[in-house]
Amino acid sequence: MRYKDPDWCEKMRIRFDYNNMMSDMIGKQGISKREIEDIEPRAEKAVLGMAEKRHSMKWRELPYINESVIGDILETSDEIRSRFENFVILGIGGSALGPVAAQQALNHQRYNELNNAARKGPRLYIEDNIDPERMNSLLDIIDVKKSMFNCITKSGGTSETMAQLMIVTGILKQRLNGSFGSNIIATTDANRGSLIKIARDYKLRTFYIPEGVGGRFSELSPVGLLPAAVCGIDIKELLAGAAYMDRLCGESDFRKNPAYMMSVMQLIAMEKGCNISVFMPYSDALKYMSDWYAQLWAESLGKKFDRSGKIVNTGQTPVKALGVTDQHSQIQLYTEGPYDKVVTFLKTDKFRTVVEIPREFEDMKDVSFLGGHTLNELLSAEQAATEYALSKSGHMNNKITLPEVNAFTIGQLIFMLEMATAFAGELLNINAFDQPGVEEGKNAAFALLGRPGYEGKKAELGFAPKKLPDYVI
Amino acid sequence: MRYKDPDWCEKMRIRFDYNNMMSDMIGKQGISKREIEDIEPRAEKAVLGMAEKRHSMKWRELPYINESVIGDILETSDEIRSRFENFVILGIGGSALGPVAAQQALNHQRYNELNNAARKGPRLYIEDNIDPERMNSLLDIIDVKKSMFNCITKSGGTSETMAQLMIVTGILKQRLNGSFGSNIIATTDANRGSLIKIARDYKLRTFYIPEGVGGRFSELSPVGLLPAAVCGIDIKELLAGAAYMDRLCGESDFRKNPAYMMSVMQLIAMEKGCNISVFMPYSDALKYMSDWYAQLWAESLGKKFDRSGKIVNTGQTPVKALGVTDQHSQIQLYTEGPYDKVVTFLKTDKFRTVVEIPREFEDMKDVSFLGGHTLNELLSAEQAATEYALSKSGHMNNKITLPEVNAFTIGQLIFMLEMATAFAGELLNINAFDQPGVEEGKNAAFALLGRPGYEGKKAELGFAPKKLPDYVI
Repeated sequence: MRYKDPDWCEKMRIRFDYNNMMSDMIGKQGISKREIEDIEPRAEKAVLGMAEKRHSMKWRELPYINESVIGDILETSDEIRSRFENFVILGIGGSALGPVAAQQALNHQRYNELNNAARKGPRLYIEDNIDPERMNSLLDIIDVKKSMFNCITKSGGTSETMAQLMIVTGILKQRLNGSFGSNIIATTDANRGSLIKIARDYKLRTFYIPEGVGGRFSELSPVGLLPAAVCGIDIKELLAGAAYMDRLCGESDFRKNPAYMMSVMQLIAMEKGCNISVFMPYSDALKYMSDWYAQLWAESLGKKFDRSGKIVNTGQTPVKALGVTDQHSQIQLYTEGPYDKVVTFLKTDKFRTVVEIPREFEDMKDVSFLGGHTLNELLSAEQAATEYALSKSGHMNNKITLPEVNAFTIGQLIFMLEMATAFAGELLNINAFDQPGVEEGKNAAFALLGRPGYEGKKAELGFAPKKLPDYVI
Repeated sequence: MRYKDPDWCEKMRIRFDYNNMMSDMIGKQGISKREIEDIEPRAEKAVLGMAEKRHSMKWRELPYINESVIGDILETSDEIRSRFENFVILGIGGSALGPVAAQQALNHQRYNELNNAARKGPRLYIEDNIDPERMNSLLDIIDVKKSMFNCITKSGGTSETMAQLMIVTGILKQRLNGSFGSNIIATTDANRGSLIKIARDYKLRTFYIPEGVGGRFSELSPVGLLPAAVCGIDIKELLAGAAYMDRLCGESDFRKNPAYMMSVMQLIAMEKGCNISVFMPYSDALKYMSDWYAQLWAESLGKKFDRSGKIVNTGQTPVKALGVTDQHSQIQLYTEGPYDKVVTFLKTDKFRTVVEIPREFEDMKDVSFLGGHTLNELLSAEQAATEYALSKSGHMNNKITLPEVNAFTIGQLIFMLEMATAFAGELLNINAFDQPGVEEGKNAAFALLGRPGYEGKKAELGFAPKKLPDYVI
């Protein structure tokens, strides 16, 4: 258990570098020291707010999750690993994005395509959409009898997830002569919603999402821990990384607190007109951290009202990019386009493998200079070069560096980004933990599907302006 | 050949609906008829510009690609289908995004995971990054001797792609006793760059990217056609769809031209402050059309200078979203956040399969209303509901509808989006076909890797401001 060694932990500490946000470095489009001083009173108030609200932000306790819950997760995952070929998550949003990100970061990049001996655990499928073609394509390739389905919904009634569950239940009943409970796990709230009732009625194995932990802050709960454990990820190290970051985030001087300072810099940039936040990992392993973070940042901060009820229509739009791939897609825009975005690079000091570029085609000068280098050097040079080009053109950028990608650093990263998001909520004086804006669409969908109780909404839809055929080409 | 039947083609015509861009429909945040009238002179000038430049925009001839090229592609693809287990594209940006998008749209959603009998053709791997872990993970799962590698680079010298080629060449030489040419195809410019020289030296099979066709406009050239044919996609139908859209785009009244009108509406929105363009397919099959289009729109329109040399720093930032998945991630922001974006829905009238939701858990009212519906209905209701919610909150949105997803409609869609992008370039009076902004980063990377000739750039990097340790936490 290397994470019990303080020296190792210190070596694995992730770093946040905001040099290239500053006008010292990139010129007038950057942030001045004065602007940081100006935000100080708000930031200090937010630091107090975070301290006061520690106990109402239940997700902040997740790194210290009960040992017996961990024991239960490990025992269940051992059993699934030995008995099932596939582990299928039925879930959407916060129930899917964390598991995807952790799997991509901490397992083989083609895990599902490895043969059984190399893979060791079951294949992992994370089904976060209700596209009928996708659903059937899954059924084409898995044997449902040899598949464990983990149905994850915090509310216990998410339509998309429950529709998937009904379909899977129907098929399992057919194939297993009416029984299905042995192939379904429920991960949900202990008290609310239909799923917990179904779980009790049919004696499903159940894991609880602790009360007060919202979907997008639930990766360090059983939502993320069970799938990770099933795929052989060291969940104790993951939690230890989160706890380590929690300690770093105990720092009350916001300038020395990586999460708070990240948040402060992003907010100053946002208030200067950067309504776009690009998250750009230079590592395929870290690719889906962007998707997870995009939900966290967008849903938490995209709000119509502040806490005093004032209309603010605030929020910064996250953009997912991947280095070096998107240098050939988005960097033209980022370096020459409007000064409307902050690019956050995410990188690792050290990959888990080295690939050498052999000396081939030595008479081709455009190409032969690459021989003798490694892909690692090429990737690293491209990240540094992109950072240089953006800074030279005066575009704000910052960087999060992981010494290595491992469960401990991923735990740190998850917790840091959660803390940064919550802190931004405090700075903006909004509720970062609700999502009232999704209700309108949800209710309209219920009305369209004829759900009892939504007749009024159905009538309202009938009063919406009729579309003009002239406006369709 | 259904695409020779004009009635079928008409039935398959894709539609662009901009009702919800208009203030008639969504209120004051929308576009007024007056604003469309105001842009008329610019739009008419752009229509003329597009007509005049037809022959310099060589990609507009791709739907009419030479029959002998098609014959060569089909013959080669037949041979690859019968002889190889894997078809691996080494390419990045425009060399990868089109092939990914077409494969996802037109083949089984878990194509690589099907067994050989169901799949019929080789597995497809599209390697558009140089991450060493990803490279090794590919080598862990494929037998290189049974793999055909298609190296695609327009310039013939893209560092990332050439590094991959060198690695693959080295491995093939080891495994095939020095020979390697039988397992490599070169797709590149006929005259420029190192790859064509390598291809001639080693007698590689070669496909040409026509002169004047830039990477991001190359999907309908051998760049996209060969991989599609290898995976069993009907490339003649794809081209027929593009040709059909070319005819629709011959319409000189911009209000009746789907590509031009899409572009006009987007540009008015952009000039009213919408610096973000969200592309949101409600279909997993159409998911990677977003990635392809994000490159097209961003690289073409993200420009520092206009054609007269004036500094404009223009461009709209594309955001990739997926319905319904991102309703649980981004819609909170889109409905309650700033009025800074246009959401473009992309949907199909008809999926290629229907999945019924059985009547299960009938005593749970939150859930049981779903029974008896289909996933198709649920998805469709959610799209309509999201459109309603965005419109009700006054957020601009529009919609592209494909009657079905097939090679003909995908051909139309690709060509329509290319035409819309080129037209936006005319409206903005910029060069939509270059990418000068990527040079700075490219040269800095060469300098960091010690490429001969880049000593000056290396010295310049040394003069960049030194990072301050205070700005690293």
